[in-house]
Amino acid sequence: MKLAIDAMGGDHAPKAIVEGSMEAIKEMNDLEIVLVGDQNKISEYLTDDTRISIIHTTTVISGDDEPVRAVRRKKDASLVLMANEVKENRADACVSAGNTGALMSAGLFQVGRIKGVERPALSPTLPTIDKKGFLLLDVGANVDAKAKHLVQYAIMGSVYVEKVRGIDSPRVGLLNIGTEDGKGNELTKSAFTLLKQAPINFVGNIEARDLLDGAADVVVTDGFSGNIALKTIEGTALTMFSMLKKSFMSNLKTKFAAGLMKQDLKELKSQLDYAEYGGAGLFGLAAPVIKAHGSSNARAIYSAIKQACYMVEHDVTKTIETTVAQLDIGEEE
Amino acid sequence: MKLAIDAMGGDHAPKAIVEGSMEAIKEMNDLEIVLVGDQNKISEYLTDDTRISIIHTTTVISGDDEPVRAVRRKKDASLVLMANEVKENRADACVSAGNTGALMSAGLFQVGRIKGVERPALSPTLPTIDKKGFLLLDVGANVDAKAKHLVQYAIMGSVYVEKVRGIDSPRVGLLNIGTEDGKGNELTKSAFTLLKQAPINFVGNIEARDLLDGAADVVVTDGFSGNIALKTIEGTALTMFSMLKKSFMSNLKTKFAAGLMKQDLKELKSQLDYAEYGGAGLFGLAAPVIKAHGSSNARAIYSAIKQACYMVEHDVTKTIETTVAQLDIGEEE
Repeated sequence: MKLAIDAMGGDHAPKAIVEGSMEAIKEMNDLEIVLVGDQNKISEYLTDDTRISIIHTTTVISGDDEPVRAVRRKKDASLVLMANEVKENRADACVSAGNTGALMSAGLFQVGRIKGVERPALSPTLPTIDKKGFLLLDVGANVDAKAKHLVQYAIMGSVYVEKVRGIDSPRVGLLNIGTEDGKGNELTKSAFTLLKQAPINFVGNIEARDLLDGAADVVVTDGFSGNIALKTIEGTALTMFSMLKKSFMSNLKTKFAAGLMKQDLKELKSQLDYAEYGGAGLFGLAAPVIKAHGSSNARAIYSAIKQACYMVEHDVTKTIETTVAQLDIGEEE
Repeated sequence: MKLAIDAMGGDHAPKAIVEGSMEAIKEMNDLEIVLVGDQNKISEYLTDDTRISIIHTTTVISGDDEPVRAVRRKKDASLVLMANEVKENRADACVSAGNTGALMSAGLFQVGRIKGVERPALSPTLPTIDKKGFLLLDVGANVDAKAKHLVQYAIMGSVYVEKVRGIDSPRVGLLNIGTEDGKGNELTKSAFTLLKQAPINFVGNIEARDLLDGAADVVVTDGFSGNIALKTIEGTALTMFSMLKKSFMSNLKTKFAAGLMKQDLKELKSQLDYAEYGGAGLFGLAAPVIKAHGSSNARAIYSAIKQACYMVEHDVTKTIETTVAQLDIGEEE
């Protein structure tokens, strides 16, 4: 199996990317990696090049670049050349911690969609209190989704969670403003009806309040609402940690308490760190494309690589294609 | 000034309602209250009936009742009779901690809308890290909002925050999936253009991640996304507190730390408790209608009453009407 990896994407590139890649190679015997980026900078950290090659380029798409334009114009950017390796069948999957929008564009233009899936979905796994996690999709690839897109998300999410995370007959929920049938806006009301007929284990509406309680294994929503939910979780957790830190630092007594709690607080923080669950898959593309978090360290890159490998090994793309093909709804574009 | 209050709504009714009312009466000399509900049950807690009267009814709308149907059929329910007092001009405003949907229906049917406002918005004030709080609207009154509705929300929110919370020229943000101009779905893109022309201090797009940081004083969004954001904040905070509690209770050392932190953790919790900021206004109705949180204690009811009084004193309803009347967009129904 061969993976193409954008060595220049993310806050800690190329160091974290190179180190994470070497870690993955050590653990997976049948893995080959091609790192795409600045050879000089990569070499600085590449202490062992066993089964690792480099495609050299100095062009980079930054976080500030306008995604679609950047992908069209910077044809030799590390992210674009990475996607091209998949397009040309020289790699089975790819991983980048760079510009999310650019990765989606490169994914669409170069890797292409699975037949029958109209819109790819950006799909991170988020933490739950029982540490099992849940898959949320879409969190922003498609901000004006239709009901049938949500059904395609449900199928893609189900296949992924079953194959890669090993959960049998995963519970699929629809993010909504109430749990009762018939609740919601026009989109969720139509989606609810379609989801009930889909070949998945649909458990109905899920309220945002119950997401982290593990109310479902897969939660589908339009990209706008999913993005709001994702970033609200992030923002609330960060705010609470910063408030907590302030409380702990307020006087000698609380500082002493902080010392006693250090290890437990660290664990709490890591429990809420969704880099632990790998990156966000761009489901619906013709090959696994993984978006690692921008702040990924070597460990998070390693997790994202492993996730891409699992998707290849378990033939997630093909299974999604077969399942979607059996649906009545589907492509019409 | 006279307020009608639903004595039977909420988890701690009528006790919390009656106690909160007596507390408000003590503090505000010109306030009269009419409590609507079961006279026997109310009397049990009414130790001082100075300027408090009762309208007796034993019919109640519960949290499980289907809102619109309940309001239409249970014409003598405490919540409906309360709204009727406002309709008949016997009360200036009303407060209920009961069924949110039923309060919205009773508000629409009985109190009626402000001319020029097409859709009322449910508008809670949420906590921020600097303790100033921000107004979020709508959180679920109107789940299929149009761009012009969001402009009406912006005006209503601005007027409220300026008049009642005393913030000059409040910063109004649009909840969106990115801060750059031109980001978002069809709704937020159109709303952005309209908001730039509206007579408000529009500060552009706000990401969900920055809500609790106090990125704006007023944040407008459609009722679906607002509901997701609100409940995600609630859910994440509750989950983190429960994880924190578990950490603190895990062994003797952490239990000792918990003892040292007790007061600080209590403060942290109260800082995130949005009952501290009063109830959620149903803005756009022809008189102030306040939805207190279902779990309101006497203190939260007292805050909601004070909030209703401020809205009456500062003539928020009339100011909204005048401002909306000056807009080009507006009613077309």
